Amino acid sequence: MINVGIIGSTGYAGQELVRILLAHPEARIVWYGSRSYVDKKYADVFRNMFTLVEDKCLDDNIPELAKQADVIFTATPQGFCASVVNEEVLANTKIIDLSADFRIKDVAVYEKWYGIEHKSPQYIKEAVYGLCEINREDIKGARLLANPGCYTTCSILTAYPLAKEGLIDPDTLIVDAKSGTSGAGRSAKTDNLFCEVNENIKAYGVTTHRHTPEIEEQLGYAAGREITINFTPHLVPMNRGILVTEYASLVKDVTEQELREIYHKYYDGEYFVRVLDAGVCPETRFVEGSNFVDVNIKTDPRTKRVIMMGAMDNLVKGAAGQAVQNMNLMFGLPERMGLELVPMFP
Amino acid sequence: MINVGIIGSTGYAGQELVRILLAHPEARIVWYGSRSYVDKKYADVFRNMFTLVEDKCLDDNIPELAKQADVIFTATPQGFCASVVNEEVLANTKIIDLSADFRIKDVAVYEKWYGIEHKSPQYIKEAVYGLCEINREDIKGARLLANPGCYTTCSILTAYPLAKEGLIDPDTLIVDAKSGTSGAGRSAKTDNLFCEVNENIKAYGVTTHRHTPEIEEQLGYAAGREITINFTPHLVPMNRGILVTEYASLVKDVTEQELREIYHKYYDGEYFVRVLDAGVCPETRFVEGSNFVDVNIKTDPRTKRVIMMGAMDNLVKGAAGQAVQNMNLMFGLPERMGLELVPMFP
Amino acid sequence: MINVGIIGSTGYAGQELVRILLAHPEARIVWYGSRSYVDKKYADVFRNMFTLVEDKCLDDNIPELAKQADVIFTATPQGFCASVVNEEVLANTKIIDLSADFRIKDVAVYEKWYGIEHKSPQYIKEAVYGLCEINREDIKGARLLANPGCYTTCSILTAYPLAKEGLIDPDTLIVDAKSGTSGAGRSAKTDNLFCEVNENIKAYGVTTHRHTPEIEEQLGYAAGREITINFTPHLVPMNRGILVTEYASLVKDVTEQELREIYHKYYDGEYFVRVLDAGVCPETRFVEGSNFVDVNIKTDPRTKRVIMMGAMDNLVKGAAGQAVQNMNLMFGLPERMGLELVPMFP
Amino acid sequence: MINVGIIGSTGYAGQELVRILLAHPEARIVWYGSRSYVDKKYADVFRNMFTLVEDKCLDDNIPELAKQADVIFTATPQGFCASVVNEEVLANTKIIDLSADFRIKDVAVYEKWYGIEHKSPQYIKEAVYGLCEINREDIKGARLLANPGCYTTCSILTAYPLAKEGLIDPDTLIVDAKSGTSGAGRSAKTDNLFCEVNENIKAYGVTTHRHTPEIEEQLGYAAGREITINFTPHLVPMNRGILVTEYASLVKDVTEQELREIYHKYYDGEYFVRVLDAGVCPETRFVEGSNFVDVNIKTDPRTKRVIMMGAMDNLVKGAAGQAVQNMNLMFGLPERMGLELVPMFP
Repeated sequence: MINVGIIGSTGYAGQELVRILLAHPEARIVWYGSRSYVDKKYADVFRNMFTLVEDKCLDDNIPELAKQADVIFTATPQGFCASVVNEEVLANTKIIDLSADFRIKDVAVYEKWYGIEHKSPQYIKEAVYGLCEINREDIKGARLLANPGCYTTCSILTAYPLAKEGLIDPDTLIVDAKSGTSGAGRSAKTDNLFCEVNENIKAYGVTTHRHTPEIEEQLGYAAGREITINFTPHLVPMNRGILVTEYASLVKDVTEQELREIYHKYYDGEYFVRVLDAGVCPETRFVEGSNFVDVNIKTDPRTKRVIMMGAMDNLVKGAAGQAVQNMNLMFGLPERMGLELVPMFP
Repeated sequence: MINVGIIGSTGYAGQELVRILLAHPEARIVWYGSRSYVDKKYADVFRNMFTLVEDKCLDDNIPELAKQADVIFTATPQGFCASVVNEEVLANTKIIDLSADFRIKDVAVYEKWYGIEHKSPQYIKEAVYGLCEINREDIKGARLLANPGCYTTCSILTAYPLAKEGLIDPDTLIVDAKSGTSGAGRSAKTDNLFCEVNENIKAYGVTTHRHTPEIEEQLGYAAGREITINFTPHLVPMNRGILVTEYASLVKDVTEQELREIYHKYYDGEYFVRVLDAGVCPETRFVEGSNFVDVNIKTDPRTKRVIMMGAMDNLVKGAAGQAVQNMNLMFGLPERMGLELVPMFP
Repeated sequence: MINVGIIGSTGYAGQELVRILLAHPEARIVWYGSRSYVDKKYADVFRNMFTLVEDKCLDDNIPELAKQADVIFTATPQGFCASVVNEEVLANTKIIDLSADFRIKDVAVYEKWYGIEHKSPQYIKEAVYGLCEINREDIKGARLLANPGCYTTCSILTAYPLAKEGLIDPDTLIVDAKSGTSGAGRSAKTDNLFCEVNENIKAYGVTTHRHTPEIEEQLGYAAGREITINFTPHLVPMNRGILVTEYASLVKDVTEQELREIYHKYYDGEYFVRVLDAGVCPETRFVEGSNFVDVNIKTDPRTKRVIMMGAMDNLVKGAAGQAVQNMNLMFGLPERMGLELVPMFP
Repeated sequence: MINVGIIGSTGYAGQELVRILLAHPEARIVWYGSRSYVDKKYADVFRNMFTLVEDKCLDDNIPELAKQADVIFTATPQGFCASVVNEEVLANTKIIDLSADFRIKDVAVYEKWYGIEHKSPQYIKEAVYGLCEINREDIKGARLLANPGCYTTCSILTAYPLAKEGLIDPDTLIVDAKSGTSGAGRSAKTDNLFCEVNENIKAYGVTTHRHTPEIEEQLGYAAGREITINFTPHLVPMNRGILVTEYASLVKDVTEQELREIYHKYYDGEYFVRVLDAGVCPETRFVEGSNFVDVNIKTDPRTKRVIMMGAMDNLVKGAAGQAVQNMNLMFGLPERMGLELVPMFP
């Protein structure tokens, strides 16, 4: 049994970790960290957990937690994890960081896009980027794991096979992404009120969203060279789900059928990535509550572009589910353990 | 391993049965019945099931199915189950009927409220009303089980302790109920289009909704006499969930604390009924995807009434979840097997 | 041309006043009051007003505003209006108060339910309760007008004819109300975030909601005696709209047809109250954006109760629209001026 | 007073015509055409019109209607208008066609993308494409007007200034569009049910949507040469609104400020096109119910692209509002008459 601590357990991603781990046969949550709700019953904050969780929220005493927990999930704002990680902590526990602190290898890029100083740049090299389908082997040995961003996970997995095979011109890549509102977090802001989000769609962070360099770095590895893309997120009036629509020019004549075969080559062994049937567009409703990413493509002979599409639950494969998938890999458990969640529809 | 057949598997309740049973350790679905989609891949109808279900939809050949299945779930329109049940079928299999055919003991009441002739009145007496928390022992021996209605389950469990204890005047009982739109089914009707339901609330079936006599019958058993109530359902722009707000006059001076103790007496041993803390109102979001019913009460000394409230997922405890709970009881399995679903929020 | 000042113009009700008054042929807004946004462009707060409103937000300097405005709308928290009204102000301007400060004639009742001290009880008697369909003549001469609450307006107009005619037993009256989320206001609270409200319904303020005594007082006038009721509001995942479902026992044998004729007697001359055809239930979608209240009833011979239903846009007839209707009456303008808004659907 | 006939008055666009024309000082609706609801009261189909419209629905007898009406709006499926237009009709009345029949000048392109034979190709040349801001002068003299598509209107107006000035490479243009569900129409299809649309986003018609050639033709006129683009529509769980996010490579070094000045040059005289302040992204909630299109741009020096964004109400500027704007121009009325609708928020 793995003892688990969660810092930031009262955000949406933290709470989704609780939902998944409560049903995980080899995990036991020993620490519900929440700076805002110390001493409050966890089930009073998230009443879905009533009768299921009796614990009270605790502070973020990492040294103490490191002694009690085999792994700590930090579902915290940027900068927190980097400010607490050190040798003593890592000697006692593993860390799966759901923030961006250790996702980007070039600290200057991190500091520029996030606008904060990195407090532990010495750990960036060691940290493993936890996109399981791509970095599986490295993840198994990690003690400090950088869990990918939500938009990032979906954007990368959707384009990865064609980027890796060199079939698209990466400089033409445009990622138009749409997210449910749980991605905006649970803090009380006017912009996230029901009446402000409902019956509306808008773009935000145009040309400046922080997931941009993360996508560029990872797809750059796949393409074998640096790439620069446009990434535009949009806020959709729904709770969960991310849909990405990606556009790129094909570098040679190739049929949709041939491209689909490449997706099958990369993903047929991947339980959590579902390559849909020809002509079927991914929809967020069909992955809700699950760790699946649904992907598909369509070619346009008129423009010689390929449109790549992916759908995912931002709180599961985009956050808590992938974090547990990483935990499973890091602790030698079956990768799918606790994650064979059937998507809930409607 | 129990072999399960589902008739009506492409409605919302039928599909929820599939979602739950796929994760049930002792059940195996052998028949995805759907008159509308015969020979179509089930996962093409519900794409959330892609890669999880490879079967095609079959017709409703009950005699053949009865040979293959240990239990048949009929998630079908009123009248279907009554038209197919017979000794030969019941000799081979058990039936859990999610329609109303066998819920009401007085066939005249059934025929009046449902406006159809009952084709198998001879089985009404034998059929067991499957409200597990109340009829547990009878359910265990049933071969024909009438799974309660969605509104009914929530309405009865919310008022049951006070009706049973004789603390409310049942003639004053008013049930004002609110349901998500999955309760309206999946057939293509203009009234259920997104733009017609969204940004709207309305009452419907006022004084005539078919769940009325079912609530009256069951709460009448609790009260020890016939009762007549007002039941008013409303359609809410959300996918899942039922909330009931019930009003009744108290027959004697009694404190809220005393009433709450009665609820605890009845339900503290019931895993699926959660009596919330004093002052906390049930909300549908906190039971979504789970088999829980959350209940609570508030007394009003000014009017000498008690307001009883209950929240439930209409597709789980109100349909598929309760059906599986009944299956577990009927087959001697642990009652909660496959049903310890953590509510998914948000 | 009437010069209008709005205090609290950046709440939802205040902004709806702006929307309506911009199209009013005899009104001109001269003061966009907003303590939170002083010096900020109004159209930067509500971007729907871009190019339509060039003004900046101003503070709440009532003496100065009283000189500039013929009428002041106070769309402010409870207590504000009572704290600023005085003879000097009323000598210069009229006040239409959208808060509860002057709605309740018994100051002790006000102070008990609202939990604050009333700063100007001397004006309570003078203030006119602005339910236009009932108090039209008194409103015409008012200089201090108490604009009714949103739930109140809908609850009263729905039951008024039967209460007035003595056909229902007022002690049996139960009001089960459902409101869109704009009624909860625009302040940044976790409970009102999109992900907390969406896909959910809940009751709140059970037995304690502040609109209760207001309904009791006004329907008590109609009934000719003091009454005590249960009023239960619910929060619905939609932006606008209130639906009330009201239950009461009939005091004598009377047909639905006879009751409907009474509604027609009271309301056929009222443009803004629409008595629907027999059997048609009011729905909030059909009044959205308009000043209409749609009402209808259904009798239940089984229980000898009548179910009265009403639907209304909480921001229009429940707040800003009724306030403008009152303004029209107070300034001798045609009552419907600027208010013949066709409901917007979908 | 202009006598107006509406064919297809019981679709969402047809009903929006009714909403707008009821408040138009110079128009009178004389014919509520609806093949599905002949002899049914219009207000029984759309109950928001109760007490406002007393008429019954009529059939689509165009010759008779042409005698009674000064203008006929055809809000009908593709092919209808082309099948009824002829010299006799056009001698008696004007036609504003909200379908695609006369939008595309090359009949072969029309027949290929729409998959039907054009019944009146001889009128294509005469028909005027009714994008008011661009074709104003031609519209004034038209007797057969092709009202632009919803996606098209928003897509064209958003990119027009830069296409016209030759500042973007039109071959790089990608239009990623998002629409509310009223755009899918009011016919009863499973795919448009509340539970299928709610909590979901999906792309559809990828590379094949019929608005593609219309955008290409019109922006091709602006660019001075044929262009080929990618257009991808998405369905969003909201009633109204279209948002377009358009990407194109800049053909030379130019600052965002310079590009914004070009937008101001084209649109500062256009009441219905609002060029937002720098850095502000268009949002559908701020145009709802109005005839406005909100546009803005953002340049990305990293990729040398410009991201152009536009938001609009698909039923107003995208259908009925623009149709009335065209009517105003065709009849010599002030262009904004009946269309100065303040956007309704929330």
